Amino acid sequence: MKVVVTGAAGFLGSRVADELLSNGLGNKKVTELILTDIHAPPARQDPRVKVLALNLAEPSAADKLIDEKCGAVFHLAAVVSGQAEADFDFGMKANLDATRSLLEAVRHKSPTAKFVFASSVAVFGGDFPPVIDDLTCVMPQTSYGTAKAMCELLVNDYARRGFADGRSVRLPTVSVRAGVANAAVTSFASGIIREPLNGKESICPVKEDQEIWLTSPVTVVKNIVHAAVVDAKLLGKWRSINLPGLCASVGDMVSALRSVAGDDVASLIRFEYDAFIAKIVASLPIKIDNSHALKLGFSVDPDFSAIIRSYIKYDLKK
Amino acid sequence: MKVVVTGAAGFLGSRVADELLSNGLGNKKVTELILTDIHAPPARQDPRVKVLALNLAEPSAADKLIDEKCGAVFHLAAVVSGQAEADFDFGMKANLDATRSLLEAVRHKSPTAKFVFASSVAVFGGDFPPVIDDLTCVMPQTSYGTAKAMCELLVNDYARRGFADGRSVRLPTVSVRAGVANAAVTSFASGIIREPLNGKESICPVKEDQEIWLTSPVTVVKNIVHAAVVDAKLLGKWRSINLPGLCASVGDMVSALRSVAGDDVASLIRFEYDAFIAKIVASLPIKIDNSHALKLGFSVDPDFSAIIRSYIKYDLKK
Repeated sequence: MKVVVTGAAGFLGSRVADELLSNGLGNKKVTELILTDIHAPPARQDPRVKVLALNLAEPSAADKLIDEKCGAVFHLAAVVSGQAEADFDFGMKANLDATRSLLEAVRHKSPTAKFVFASSVAVFGGDFPPVIDDLTCVMPQTSYGTAKAMCELLVNDYARRGFADGRSVRLPTVSVRAGVANAAVTSFASGIIREPLNGKESICPVKEDQEIWLTSPVTVVKNIVHAAVVDAKLLGKWRSINLPGLCASVGDMVSALRSVAGDDVASLIRFEYDAFIAKIVASLPIKIDNSHALKLGFSVDPDFSAIIRSYIKYDLKK
Repeated sequence: MKVVVTGAAGFLGSRVADELLSNGLGNKKVTELILTDIHAPPARQDPRVKVLALNLAEPSAADKLIDEKCGAVFHLAAVVSGQAEADFDFGMKANLDATRSLLEAVRHKSPTAKFVFASSVAVFGGDFPPVIDDLTCVMPQTSYGTAKAMCELLVNDYARRGFADGRSVRLPTVSVRAGVANAAVTSFASGIIREPLNGKESICPVKEDQEIWLTSPVTVVKNIVHAAVVDAKLLGKWRSINLPGLCASVGDMVSALRSVAGDDVASLIRFEYDAFIAKIVASLPIKIDNSHALKLGFSVDPDFSAIIRSYIKYDLKK
């Protein structure tokens, strides 16, 4: 099967590529893998891989990417929340228009292709119940969440009409991301664990009692790939899935770091309140009912200590 | 105040114009009223009125329509449900892109203007609870409902960012519309009352037990105008409002017609099942909790017999 991954130079995109190359897609082997991003992703030794630099906000880009042989698209490219909030036009172009162009290309060239769209829990916001489920209304309080919610509607309608076999997965905040901080307002949720484990100080812009809905990279990558495998019949009339996650407060995260790595490491976290970030983070959901996603075969992390240990095992000092 | 009405040649648009000219907007007088549609709306004697033919799907149209003096926009222009389902591209252009262009023009020229967007209960669909409320998730099962739901998200984000003082009103099915049938899948909900009262046979494409969520033209026009007057603070974090309506089955509607106008009139309805129409109508919501909208000062019709009498009084043989 020929597969396309956008945002493939990014943290999650490159790992989705690894997973596809190692384990295929369900019972299908990946025979051709196109990895694209605004700058070409690093070349790989694997002869199945082609890398491609493309600005998906250009109207012609999607046409260059999708062809008749395309069996699955993992659309992970996005402008992150902080940047989309700071630059509305840029965010809408990258997060809404680019997704629409990709869906159009799939519709006209390979309408049976699986189209996995990386959405976000940021579609929720404002007034929501203590525990969110599949029937909780979206009410985004960021332009990032707004564009994601708009794309979910498109993905669902394209699926309903047979234009693309779309599936939107709402990603929890991913922690611990390897690498460096980014412009996501939730970047600190990785930074407060990653930097101290690397002997560096890290600033936490929210208060200790702020709760966050979290997933590890390993689990979310497995879940993103699984989204292309789920039987369409099980998805019913709505193609958006809340990926499983777990709820932890910043205080819980710090305690977990202390128990796994010791006091000296945990003491490298410094609290410096940032009202802009704190307000957006406070608008995000903190508890979602995992039962539907687990029934569909998605996975969940056991607890945040396990997430830290997984980072230490796979990513620390790589 | 300068006010713009799109879709102003249409049934609701022309009545919203009447209402604005007669009663103003809250405690403000309308001093200039721009009425636009794809064909120029009929000229009026009133010196405050300018009529304008504009294709809002053209990128430059919104800029011609909105200027710095604009105090309110009533955006009623749309491609109706049946047509948007038959021609996806045309529907998205008219229902999504045109709204986005208008919002952009307001953002750059008159960001404090009220922007009243005519949405629809067709944003609901698929799995919904027996009674819908403000926190029920949207899950449209038509491309019309999809575009409307996408626009609601934009309207909300433009309002949140201070780009436009947006308010989306979800219209129940309007009955009894005067005039002739249109391509809306719910067109019959007017036809089965209007045609018999005018001595003509009318075909009902759904079964007698199909329930519908209804409003009269008089009430919905008052409510659309009221949407621009509601205090923004009362709207909270979500700018979409389910306009009040009442639930009646087709059987109830026929009985009401029989009681108001007699057996001979009611016997002009012929049932001829149409699976395409019936499926879409069955996906629409039939009961919505009116309490929030009533608290915000919107109105509701007492019952369907009153709606028929209102049609007879104001519209029959005009």
